Amino acid sequence: MRLLLAASAFVLAAAAPPPASTPTDIVNSAPASAWRTIPADELMLIEFEGGGRTIVQLAPAFAPIHVANMQAMARGGYWDGATVYRVQENYVAQWGTNDAKKGFPAGVRPKPPREYERRLAGLSPVSLPYPDSYSRHVGYALGWPMAWDPKRGTANLTHCYAMVGVGRDLFPDTGAGGELYAVIGQATRQLDRNIALAGRVVEGIENLSALPRGTEALGIYKEGTFARRIVRVRLASQLPEAQRPSFQYLDEHSPSFAAYIHKRANRKDAFYEVPLGGVDLCNAPVPVRRTPAHSAR
Amino acid sequence: MRLLLAASAFVLAAAAPPPASTPTDIVNSAPASAWRTIPADELMLIEFEGGGRTIVQLAPAFAPIHVANMQAMARGGYWDGATVYRVQENYVAQWGTNDAKKGFPAGVRPKPPREYERRLAGLSPVSLPYPDSYSRHVGYALGWPMAWDPKRGTANLTHCYAMVGVGRDLFPDTGAGGELYAVIGQATRQLDRNIALAGRVVEGIENLSALPRGTEALGIYKEGTFARRIVRVRLASQLPEAQRPSFQYLDEHSPSFAAYIHKRANRKDAFYEVPLGGVDLCNAPVPVRRTPAHSAR
Repeated sequence: MRLLLAASAFVLAAAAPPPASTPTDIVNSAPASAWRTIPADELMLIEFEGGGRTIVQLAPAFAPIHVANMQAMARGGYWDGATVYRVQENYVAQWGTNDAKKGFPAGVRPKPPREYERRLAGLSPVSLPYPDSYSRHVGYALGWPMAWDPKRGTANLTHCYAMVGVGRDLFPDTGAGGELYAVIGQATRQLDRNIALAGRVVEGIENLSALPRGTEALGIYKEGTFARRIVRVRLASQLPEAQRPSFQYLDEHSPSFAAYIHKRANRKDAFYEVPLGGVDLCNAPVPVRRTPAHSAR
Repeated sequence: MRLLLAASAFVLAAAAPPPASTPTDIVNSAPASAWRTIPADELMLIEFEGGGRTIVQLAPAFAPIHVANMQAMARGGYWDGATVYRVQENYVAQWGTNDAKKGFPAGVRPKPPREYERRLAGLSPVSLPYPDSYSRHVGYALGWPMAWDPKRGTANLTHCYAMVGVGRDLFPDTGAGGELYAVIGQATRQLDRNIALAGRVVEGIENLSALPRGTEALGIYKEGTFARRIVRVRLASQLPEAQRPSFQYLDEHSPSFAAYIHKRANRKDAFYEVPLGGVDLCNAPVPVRRTPAHSAR
């Protein structure tokens, strides 16, 4: 069976040193010191009826009030019995509830400010040294893909695959956080600076991306139907410590990260013959992994 | 129910003229003269067991020998009973067969040349006026997304969402065309100039993108299992004329196309408040539609 990507490349390489390394090789060999552990209250666990779990990392450094809302909703059981009600091909999967009768749990601000950008001050971003179609400055900060504008002094998360944002009504509504979407196709960068991004899926994106597409306009499911029901949503910090999943991201300031980016932009190995000398922000995602069992938590 | 994208925007706009137009508005109002009909022998119809059909437009101007192989395989029934055997999250869905015992139909060249690029001469591309991370020159020609290099005099199709390529073994294999993949995630532009692109899915991509992901390395299904079986693959030209599906693409030289691109890069309407002033090649796909019933075929 022919492969598009070379599983067999690793086998061949083992027999014929020195092997040309891949981005995955670089990530796999990054030292423990290059990884940053994500706090347990920044991991949201979405459990689906019939099994399956999707884990979202929250981004309080970029959308603090929306994230605080989402944390309060998780702690308050707001999403128990909510659904995935929209799956639009090459766009987004959207879930949650906006049941006015239900009322928000204590601590939720129903009309958050526009957290579409934040101050650049306080961040020390690492630039991606290749042109971007949307912004003069793109790269990474605090483990997130980011665009920024030094003149205005602002920075914003970018709509890459698996990023999670806050559904909203028409401008100037900002969304409270009860309805969320994940990007499941080509990066929807046109949404940057127009809507609040609040996290990213770090595990179980296929529980959203592989669902049947909704048949109504915008991929909405027919009234009264849904793609999947959510049993409950909790923060990892609500679980007993031994049961908490733990994740780490590769620090953008580490030499391993720089080597990873360079390799993403310059593939040349048993499969790739022509390195292109560039990569776009959303095609060089921040590596995230399960915290190894032997690693300090 | 809150929406990420404004279905309700159209309703509001009808009540409050003048509405700010969207890219879809522009495409929907493009005159008949802006559309080009795709020839029937450049449409490959993949019918799945249990229902569902995926339609691939072929790109003979870019990979003539691979496309001729695929046309011969379709006419020869080579893929009858083949499977979708690989579905890799945020990467590709791959289908076909490489059964050496089966043998290729007459007319297939088992070792095609590298059709990863073609001569730029003979094309009159329209530039996308925004920076690209991979190539100095990107845009559109003959209804396809393309990158090019005037110095080398070469042009290549680009790995955007739904583009279809030819699976191959390690370099220098080029793949015969019996195994094909479609991009089902963030554009895999690193594959540009490294593998033959031969078409794009114009309808039914969800029959590939919404499948359960394969559990083995690279999204391969477990040995002896598969995501979906293919009943048969035919060219539209093999069907009686009245049964042929017909598609059109928006001519990149038309004023409507220019307006569409400009609007994709500058969203501002009831939902979008901040136009970004740019768009990337794969986020501004060539509009394709079913040929209207009243239109000349």
